[in-house]
Amino acid sequence: MKRYTHIGGNQDTQNFGGYSASECVHEHFILKIPDGIPLDKAGPILCAGITLYDPLVHWGATTGKKMTIGIVGIGGLGTMGIKLAKALGHKVYAISTSASKAAMAKEKGADEFVVSTDPESMKQHANTCDLILNTVSANHQMAHYLGLLRTDGTLVQLGLVTNDHAVNQMALLPTRKSISASMIGGIKCTQDLLELCAKAQILPDVHMIEAKEIDWAWEQLGTVNKDGLRYVIDIKKSLENKEFMPPVE
Amino acid sequence: MKRYTHIGGNQDTQNFGGYSASECVHEHFILKIPDGIPLDKAGPILCAGITLYDPLVHWGATTGKKMTIGIVGIGGLGTMGIKLAKALGHKVYAISTSASKAAMAKEKGADEFVVSTDPESMKQHANTCDLILNTVSANHQMAHYLGLLRTDGTLVQLGLVTNDHAVNQMALLPTRKSISASMIGGIKCTQDLLELCAKAQILPDVHMIEAKEIDWAWEQLGTVNKDGLRYVIDIKKSLENKEFMPPVE
Repeated sequence: MKRYTHIGGNQDTQNFGGYSASECVHEHFILKIPDGIPLDKAGPILCAGITLYDPLVHWGATTGKKMTIGIVGIGGLGTMGIKLAKALGHKVYAISTSASKAAMAKEKGADEFVVSTDPESMKQHANTCDLILNTVSANHQMAHYLGLLRTDGTLVQLGLVTNDHAVNQMALLPTRKSISASMIGGIKCTQDLLELCAKAQILPDVHMIEAKEIDWAWEQLGTVNKDGLRYVIDIKKSLENKEFMPPVE
Repeated sequence: MKRYTHIGGNQDTQNFGGYSASECVHEHFILKIPDGIPLDKAGPILCAGITLYDPLVHWGATTGKKMTIGIVGIGGLGTMGIKLAKALGHKVYAISTSASKAAMAKEKGADEFVVSTDPESMKQHANTCDLILNTVSANHQMAHYLGLLRTDGTLVQLGLVTNDHAVNQMALLPTRKSISASMIGGIKCTQDLLELCAKAQILPDVHMIEAKEIDWAWEQLGTVNKDGLRYVIDIKKSLENKEFMPPVE
């Protein structure tokens, strides 16, 4: 019989996150947040962070081999991808449809910026990436990025894209390129990531909100969010203010 | 300056193959045919054999790990795939649109036969293959085979298929399946394969013809060839009979 551990509490005594007052989980699925990670930064590591880190580990980025890694989509996931790939010692391309993100991507650590809508920029970086992590979750054609891969390179799709991709195997065959996809990561890998993030101070960029600001944050994500920010809800403060629900406008 | 070695000769003195009277190649690109391989069986090892062996090596089938390997298309390439995968100690599925090839595939060494046009047969073998080598060169949709792969499995396309494949990344993402493609193999891997084939007596099934029978052989390949045969031209005999050219009909 396995032992279960209650990590929550109640509203008056403890608060460790959105579900902590009501959820019990098996101790195998509990993660230890190292001291070096502020709590407001911990949440996005467990989602955007591990979504990028697990494929980095799986495709060899923690083996010591020096790689060129492309990150497509410079939002909440992509900026964590840039920071992680850079911290692991690789050459990192930020790849985006929009040249306007170049300064931000370089500030996060990208070595080069590839404008995927500019044939010249794509040509300039052709056949150079060992690994591309594609964070785009909007419908698109992944074949667009295959030309950036070098021999034996892999394109990994991370978004919940619903459209079919038209893939011609002649784009893969001469240089044995691969297409794959990945979703989140396991507990061990997530704990490893937390330790790495604490040690190397790889932290997501977050903006704290209260529960009442959820509609506003949602709007930012869909429209004007340009900085790869993750919005983190301060549950304790929201509970203190008794503002569980966003205001009806 | 590299040294070049002449491996040919002339029609009166030596004959080692179709181009041997006229071609000089760099010694780095010369392969040694081990004694255990009859010359008529050597040719197809250098094409069908290495086309299957190189991806077997690349995707881990020579590491000692026990795998389940599917071979799609039970022709000249597929039968070599079955023989090689079996000789390397793996569980082998022969996968074909046609149930009529079952007996032949099992005779070549397949452990199981999957009828890809039979949903029941496909369902029965779902989520079991670590690696699928697809030898089909006719236009088709590769996504049809993804359901046979288990977690982290890879589908490798080997044929020069020209149509686009409709690939939905949701078929790859939950269990990190991959799609790749491969073409032939390098000299070192080919020499390794020749040694392995000699030692384990993994030999292609061939039918010797003379040059004048080329049209007939071509017809067999397109229509009635059911046994995964490779047709090998006996150049020496064709030259002796002064029948370089097939008869004009």
